Amino acid sequence: MMKWLKVQEDQAIRVNHEKLQSLLTRIFARFGLREEDAAVCADVLVLADLRGVDSHGVSNAVKNIYVPALKDGRINPKPTVRVVKENATTAVVDGDKGMGMIAGVYSMNLAIKKARETGVGMVTTTNSKHYGMAGYYAMMALPHDMIGWSMTNSGPSVVPLWGREAMLGTNPIAIAAPTKNEVPFVFDVATSTVAAQKVAVAGILGVQIPEGWAVDKEGTPTTNPLAARESRMLLPLGATREQGGHKGYGLAVIVDIFCGILSGAGYSKELTERQQVGHFFGAFDIGAFRQLDEFKEHMDKMVRALGATPTTEGHDRVYVAGEPDYESEVERRKNGIPLHKDVVAYLRDLAREMDVDPDL
Amino acid sequence: MMKWLKVQEDQAIRVNHEKLQSLLTRIFARFGLREEDAAVCADVLVLADLRGVDSHGVSNAVKNIYVPALKDGRINPKPTVRVVKENATTAVVDGDKGMGMIAGVYSMNLAIKKARETGVGMVTTTNSKHYGMAGYYAMMALPHDMIGWSMTNSGPSVVPLWGREAMLGTNPIAIAAPTKNEVPFVFDVATSTVAAQKVAVAGILGVQIPEGWAVDKEGTPTTNPLAARESRMLLPLGATREQGGHKGYGLAVIVDIFCGILSGAGYSKELTERQQVGHFFGAFDIGAFRQLDEFKEHMDKMVRALGATPTTEGHDRVYVAGEPDYESEVERRKNGIPLHKDVVAYLRDLAREMDVDPDL
Repeated sequence: MMKWLKVQEDQAIRVNHEKLQSLLTRIFARFGLREEDAAVCADVLVLADLRGVDSHGVSNAVKNIYVPALKDGRINPKPTVRVVKENATTAVVDGDKGMGMIAGVYSMNLAIKKARETGVGMVTTTNSKHYGMAGYYAMMALPHDMIGWSMTNSGPSVVPLWGREAMLGTNPIAIAAPTKNEVPFVFDVATSTVAAQKVAVAGILGVQIPEGWAVDKEGTPTTNPLAARESRMLLPLGATREQGGHKGYGLAVIVDIFCGILSGAGYSKELTERQQVGHFFGAFDIGAFRQLDEFKEHMDKMVRALGATPTTEGHDRVYVAGEPDYESEVERRKNGIPLHKDVVAYLRDLAREMDVDPDL
Repeated sequence: MMKWLKVQEDQAIRVNHEKLQSLLTRIFARFGLREEDAAVCADVLVLADLRGVDSHGVSNAVKNIYVPALKDGRINPKPTVRVVKENATTAVVDGDKGMGMIAGVYSMNLAIKKARETGVGMVTTTNSKHYGMAGYYAMMALPHDMIGWSMTNSGPSVVPLWGREAMLGTNPIAIAAPTKNEVPFVFDVATSTVAAQKVAVAGILGVQIPEGWAVDKEGTPTTNPLAARESRMLLPLGATREQGGHKGYGLAVIVDIFCGILSGAGYSKELTERQQVGHFFGAFDIGAFRQLDEFKEHMDKMVRALGATPTTEGHDRVYVAGEPDYESEVERRKNGIPLHKDVVAYLRDLAREMDVDPDL
């Protein structure tokens, strides 16, 4: 994440991740979730915060996504997640409108199980809800010595190239691959230039956004975060034709094909009315393709070569996907997660409202 | 492709695609390729030209890639393509340093066969050469009612974000998905902002390139196509951190993981020395996930919705990936492929040199 989008330390309270996880689990349980499901949901949110993916951690998601939907019944607290179609390598899972993390973890575990048996497992998931950080599910493959793949679609907030109506979600793609001694490769990105949350933060901070992030109501590129918030229209990765905007746009459509059409959940534009989203999960058992240790050593070699690339002026290091998040995780596990003091106050108030010990 | 990069009609000779295919087949056969292999290679090149993917058609690839490598023995004209590891859903294929199209078509056919049996087929290919247009292999899945996936790595020409040494290939990703009545979805893009060929064309035309395409020798962004040609360093899709350059960079690494590390061929930076590339091919049998006709009708609905998006000023239509290429294909099948007159002269000279009838 860009530095200016980070919570300022003087506005932050450092919160222990285990305490945060415990509090969230107890709050979700009070909303009627099964204990083990509540713990899964908390785990996905806290890992996002640990890894510095603040847009998908508790600051935004709890207050703006999960709590309102649990309160008004749009999310089913006790879903019966089930396989509706299956063979040895593939499955379609119905999330029963529960928290997306529940269907997500179920589906990714199923993909991993199938990959162990047949080399690959591919699972598409329908009738689900916001599942948090896409990278969480891809990373689930790592301890199994597999490559993990996770994608989700979401309601429309991104314009197609040359369009002035939001037709696509931010539709993220995540891929994780294991290494031997280096930090595992974890790629987890929205197919828009940035996530909507970054525009919101810029609006709060009162700073301009770069060109290429969003358009105003008329579809004209804007650097005004308030105009972008009003239009709710982000640009796809690449933004313009000359900079490859058709590529980000096409990637978003691919996510819709695998998550929305293959599963039947619906493509981004249909999701507002359908009140659901779709996901896709894949696992590749490395041993089915190549001797595992060779693969991991080769990954290490590539990661080290990329990290040793001579840098351009003003930068002292080339990162590989997953490294900044890993460094954040190490630091925050030790020193706590820096949450804005208003977020901490909100969580404590929510805990009291739900009659849960607000200890953080 | 951007209009200013097209061959000008007054410099072009329209060539019938069947004649072009026949000529290329005969030329490749004279280089020692088996008749059926020669026809496959010609088919991949001609389809690129038909679909307007001129950078991967005969104009560039024959003269600059295939003919020199066939002449000096870097490409094995009669490869023994073989499966080196296999189960019901996965395989590793060795291309025996033949033309990449031969290993590519073999591997994609294998992925399709496996998908028919188990729902998905995933094949990684090592010890291969430049395979032409990535989309060709993804499109092979369409008549089988499957989603097709194809990627290849290539020698280093792209810098990582904040790097000033080329560490990655243009590493393209192609995905194709069938429709019912609409034009099939075909996504086929380099993970750099643009293909190197576009920078070369800008240099020939004497026009500036946009920012975000390339850097000079010092790693500084440049709009001078000659400085970019000299450095041979393109930028990844997104170009800068604020515009999502880490996303294009990460996608290129993903291509290296699936094509170079899973197969053992090597990641982009290793390929110059190893004199080979790796590919990856996937096929998803739609029927394993969803009733086929429902899927295709749903695809049609999405494609129509995207095409009906209101446009920004100066544009009269929103395209879906595959539509511009399809329109080019229809037009060029009828009117011929516009090749630069120098390219036509080169092909005729080459034909005479190889003692082949130069009819075009």
